[in-house]
This record gives sequence, structure tokens and C-alpha cells, in this order.
Amino acid sequence: MRLGAIEAGGTKFVCGIGDETGQVSEQLRIPTTTPAVTLAAVVDFFQEHPVDAIGIGSFGPIGVNPQHRDFGYITQTPKAGWENVNFLGYMRTHLNIPIYWTTDVNVAAYGEYRLGAAKNVENLVYFTVGTGIGAGVIYQGHFLQGFNHLEAGHIFVNHRPDDDFAGVCPYHGDCLEGLASGPALEQRFGQPAQALAANPVVWELEADYIAQACVNYTLSYSPDRIVIGGGVMHQEQLFPLIRQAFKSQLAGYTTTPELNSYIQRIALNDDAGLTGCLLLAKDLIDSGQTVGA
Amino acid sequence: MRLGAIEAGGTKFVCGIGDETGQVSEQLRIPTTTPAVTLAAVVDFFQEHPVDAIGIGSFGPIGVNPQHRDFGYITQTPKAGWENVNFLGYMRTHLNIPIYWTTDVNVAAYGEYRLGAAKNVENLVYFTVGTGIGAGVIYQGHFLQGFNHLEAGHIFVNHRPDDDFAGVCPYHGDCLEGLASGPALEQRFGQPAQALAANPVVWELEADYIAQACVNYTLSYSPDRIVIGGGVMHQEQLFPLIRQAFKSQLAGYTTTPELNSYIQRIALNDDAGLTGCLLLAKDLIDSGQTVGA
Repeated sequence: MRLGAIEAGGTKFVCGIGDETGQVSEQLRIPTTTPAVTLAAVVDFFQEHPVDAIGIGSFGPIGVNPQHRDFGYITQTPKAGWENVNFLGYMRTHLNIPIYWTTDVNVAAYGEYRLGAAKNVENLVYFTVGTGIGAGVIYQGHFLQGFNHLEAGHIFVNHRPDDDFAGVCPYHGDCLEGLASGPALEQRFGQPAQALAANPVVWELEADYIAQACVNYTLSYSPDRIVIGGGVMHQEQLFPLIRQAFKSQLAGYTTTPELNSYIQRIALNDDAGLTGCLLLAKDLIDSGQTVGA
Repeated sequence: MRLGAIEAGGTKFVCGIGDETGQVSEQLRIPTTTPAVTLAAVVDFFQEHPVDAIGIGSFGPIGVNPQHRDFGYITQTPKAGWENVNFLGYMRTHLNIPIYWTTDVNVAAYGEYRLGAAKNVENLVYFTVGTGIGAGVIYQGHFLQGFNHLEAGHIFVNHRPDDDFAGVCPYHGDCLEGLASGPALEQRFGQPAQALAANPVVWELEADYIAQACVNYTLSYSPDRIVIGGGVMHQEQLFPLIRQAFKSQLAGYTTTPELNSYIQRIALNDDAGLTGCLLLAKDLIDSGQTVGA
């Protein structure tokens, strides 16, 4: 069985061919220019390399509710030219195979859930701290979503009184993403995350906000595991600080699995997204449906 | 079909007999004293008034995960004498009928979901703002829960810089419950909620925190509806203020149903809990199982 993967990002699209074990045999990177050019290049790739089904993880926001008119669309994105683009519809018109459609963060979550840091657990919260903060929740094997997909990287947390930084989120100012994303670190401290590695003040503050996110996700979902990825999390010194702050903030109010297992770093690294796309394509074939979300 | 309901609170237990339409024909209130006395009185009631199944909504925290040893227990409650009480086990020992077991807030959520302010929607967030803040989430007909039940009344929100009140939560200080529960209002302003009805400063601040909760729940669950109950919400002037603050805080980041339908007050009032218990008892019978959670 040959499976296809599309990781659609705001800078580049990565197309992959692989199998149901998540092994990728071929890959193509396509710069994200205009929808007409980029999507045509994606279709060309899969016409030259036929597959039985494709899983797509797209930047967003995207429409994932089949009952809404924007199903399959990239919706209100700030990415110029990509607003209200019927990505899924274009693929279905040109490629007559089953296609699974979800967010970029969800496909990475699914990769970690099936073959990475969360295999063998039932309920997962996965989030990524990088240019933005995105979260995906897998509940009993399925993505948690409703009227829209989740946007739990933008929840409000307690803006520490000793932190006078206003936050960088263009929508909410000091939501979680506004306070704790890579750009927030860089603007607050004047240097990118990797240049700040030796400054403990930076990581104590960052860990406080990420721990608050973990507390809110724990209270909101009661998952079996929280897996954290993204560029900022390359600062591995964060993990013990996050666990410590989490324990202190939660204050024993509810129980969780043991913290070293409960809060973990991503295991598949850059492969998580493509792996998730391949496995979702396989699941879709098994379901007998031609489109999934 | 005769169905039973137990709303188990920290002050009183309410036992009810009713039918699958949610109609209650008989009721008994039993003061919450010691487990031995109170639970025996509950069993007496149902031995005198036999039913085909019972739904229980209990104060907590409680164990709802059948894979854990504390399943069926009231666990770490501050209520003296009730810690580590095997409530469900006691009922099952004395009453040989199917019993559904969940939290007090979940049974009220289920009543609203089936017959109240959220009938005809798929995904519901219900929360209650009173002595504490409790939340229940119904996702595609089932309670969202995992390692434990949810505790989303204790999430962190942004403690407003112009609000120097420390918060009343004994665990977290200024979590949502700490900032916005009835006791928080009373301690911050020196009078109970109903005595503050005419003071707009109180309700602007309260609406801000409740709206932050609605934003976080929207981003975390993307439900079709948010229904709010509890003693503080008897201040009906809160609802327009909450919708206005919600709109401003969310800042168009994701879409929701129209706000007057999206954020609503409870419809069944004090009957929501008993109604939910009866319907959960009926569902359990239909499922063919003898215990549910």
C-alpha cells in the first residue's frame, strides 16, 4: 500500500510517499507561494507518484466541520492569498483517492499518539511552542473538535504581575501564545530563544507559562499524557522546570500519571507530521470512506 | 419504567423517583451527615420505592475511571468524614440494579443537554458559578473525561491588573473559582452577590472573568453551546455583559454560533440535576450494562 502525506505550512509544503508503518520513501518540498502554483505542484507530485490515499495536515485556521460551508477550506489565515482557499476541494477534484483533512498540529499529534511519545495511551494533549502555540487533543483515538477545530494555544493564562511584557498575539495580546511563543521570548528579551539558553530568568518565566497551559489542559481534558514539541522546546532544560512549576501550580488538586511520564517531549521530532499524515491516510482507507476530518 | 435519581451534595442528598421523560413523582431530602447514616437512608428510600436503575450525581472529587482503584469513590474531598468513601460500591451492594455514576455537575449538564437549554446540540460545555465553579463537557453525547473527571472550574485565567483581590481557592488562590465564585465576590466586595446587584463595577469584573472562562472553553472544546448555571448566575444582568466581554476578548479569532444562542442560562433550574440522573439511568438500562460512568 502506498500512502501520501501533505504537511502544508505557511513557508513550505512537504509532500511525502510512505507506508502504513510511517516510513517515508520519497519527499518533496514546495515553497508556499500562491495557491494556484503551490497546489498545482502538489497535484503534479501525486500524479507522478500515485498513492492509495492521502493525509493532509494544513496550516490554518481551516474548516474541519463537514456541516459547514467552509469545510476543506483554509479560512481566515493572515497568510496573503490563502484566505478562503478550498484546499481539500482542489485535491479531491484532481486526485480521485480518499483524503483525510486536519490541522498541521493534529497530524503531528497523531504521529506521536501512534508511534511516538504517546503510543499506548488513550487520551493525549499535544502542543507545540514555536512561532505560534498550537494544540491538538486526541480523545479515545479521535481528534477532539466541534463547531471548529481547537485553538487551545490561545487560551488565557495568568499574566504574571512581575512580567510587564504586553504579549505578541495580534488578536489577544497576552494570551498563552502572546506570552510564551518564540516571538514573545525574542521580543521580551531582545534575542531569539537559542541565544538565551544560559539565562535562567528566561526559562523560569517560560516554564511558568507553559506549566499553566499544562494545568489548564489537565483540568480541561484529564489526559493520560501531555507531549510538547516546537522550536522553543529544543531548550530541554525547560522540561524539569515545567514539571516542577506544574506540580506547584496544580497543588495536588487532581491526580495525574507520574510527572516524568505525564509531561514529555516529542519523540518523532520533524517526522511527527508526515508520520501522522500517512497513518491517517491508512485509517481512512480502513474506514471505507473517501473523505475524513 | 421507574427510575431513580441521587443528587449527592455536601449539605444534602436529594433522592428522586421518576420516569424517562424526566418527570419526578417523589422526592426525599436527606441531610449529609456521616456516610454510614446518610447512605443507609438513601438505601432505605430505594428499598421502599424500588426502581429499575439509578443515576447518581455526586459531589467530589470522585473516581470515574473504571481502571482505577478509586472508581466509585468520593476521593480527596475536604468534606469531613467523606474522604475515600466507596459510595457506588455501597449502593451496588445494597441495591441490585444498574447504577450510573458521575459528578453533580455532569448530571445537571446532561439534563440541560437532553431537555434544557442545550437540547438539539451535539457538544455542550455546562458550568455552574456558585459556591464553587464546576464544569461538565458533553462531547457527542458522552461526558468528556479521561484519567479523572474534568475540573475545568479551576483553570487559570488572566487575573486583571486592576483587581488586587488574592482569590479564595484554597488550592490555587486566583484560579477561575478563586476569582469568580460566589465566595470570591462576597470576600472581595464585603457582601453576598444578591446584595451587590445594583453595583455595576461588580458585574463588569465578574463578567470579565466568566467571559475568559467562555473564551478558554471555546478555544479548548469548540462546543455548539455554553450553558451557565449556579447561584451567582441568578444575576441575569450578567449574560449580556458576558457576551459583550467574550466577543471583545475572543477578538474574532475563531467563529462560534450566534452569541445569544451560544452563551445561555440554564433552562431547567433546580431540576437539571435530578432530570439528568433519571435520563442517565434510562440510558444505562438501554445499554444493557449494570454500571456506567
